[in-house]
Amino acid sequence: MGRWQPDARGRLAKAALELYGERGYEQTTVAEIAQRAGLTERTFFRHYADKREVLFAGSDVLQDLCVEAVAGAPASAAPVDAVAAALEAASGMFDGGRDHVRRRQAVVGSHRELRERELIKLASLAAALAEALRARGIPEPAASLTAELGVAVFKVGFAAWLTAPEERDLAQVMRETLARLKDVTLSP
Amino acid sequence: MGRWQPDARGRLAKAALELYGERGYEQTTVAEIAQRAGLTERTFFRHYADKREVLFAGSDVLQDLCVEAVAGAPASAAPVDAVAAALEAASGMFDGGRDHVRRRQAVVGSHRELRERELIKLASLAAALAEALRARGIPEPAASLTAELGVAVFKVGFAAWLTAPEERDLAQVMRETLARLKDVTLSP
Repeated sequence: MGRWQPDARGRLAKAALELYGERGYEQTTVAEIAQRAGLTERTFFRHYADKREVLFAGSDVLQDLCVEAVAGAPASAAPVDAVAAALEAASGMFDGGRDHVRRRQAVVGSHRELRERELIKLASLAAALAEALRARGIPEPAASLTAELGVAVFKVGFAAWLTAPEERDLAQVMRETLARLKDVTLSP
Repeated sequence: MGRWQPDARGRLAKAALELYGERGYEQTTVAEIAQRAGLTERTFFRHYADKREVLFAGSDVLQDLCVEAVAGAPASAAPVDAVAAALEAASGMFDGGRDHVRRRQAVVGSHRELRERELIKLASLAAALAEALRARGIPEPAASLTAELGVAVFKVGFAAWLTAPEERDLAQVMRETLARLKDVTLSP
């Protein structure tokens, strides 16, 4: 095996998700993940702290993308539009990866500790979005409210996308979910 | 000490919060809580499973109040108005107890495990609200979105109330926060 492996990180993630699905998350070892990916344990630990981290590394990337999108939105953009830009940026991360995401959600959903970690990551995303909005001069409580609303749309839109027909992409589902949120806040 | 103690539960909660503030949550024992309340450990365990439960017993009461309010809202009420009724019902729980709540938040906020448990309780509240809305015939994703929005208003409104001038009551702050949420969802 050569020392340099193209996309070792992606191969490890793919191997891990396959094994978590086949054998169960608890039963899978790092050694098995590395072997399935044709890599060493040492390489695994260069990319991930542990087997749980394989499931959550994407959450940090997602948060960075969202924060950058809020910071980069036009100065004239309303807070909700800056958050819409964040959802759009986040959606791009999942292009073409719905099967991988479904496998991941199945593992996370079936372990209490992993579901709790998911909640923590979402709370961290809300806090980061609120901070990015305050940096744009949005005062409280509008900044926190808009951030929480963004995370609500992300959660609900993401779940809807996972069961939506294959041709519907995540960005589209997110836009529709945000539009729906605007509807439900209005009393008839 | 007589076998019957009026409001043993409330006295235990008050004693626990005082001790958590004075000595720290980790350092406080159930024996000390019972002693401060003038009760036995046995009585403590009739009311609470452990010292953590003292901090979270209110979350279950809150959830029940919210679900009942959604179920009891007039059939003609829009989803967001049913959730507004839930926030109103929840607010009543905290009347006159702001100092107790502040002590509780200080303890929860300073321990990672307790903050995580708080997130889990809020996620459980969102799921229960969504179910109560679906029981009113609200389809998905509107039910989940409205429920998440309700929890967002609860979180942000609650935090605002804790630092608000003393004369402002929680129900009023919740109504204003919900109104603010409606504003931020509209692009100008």
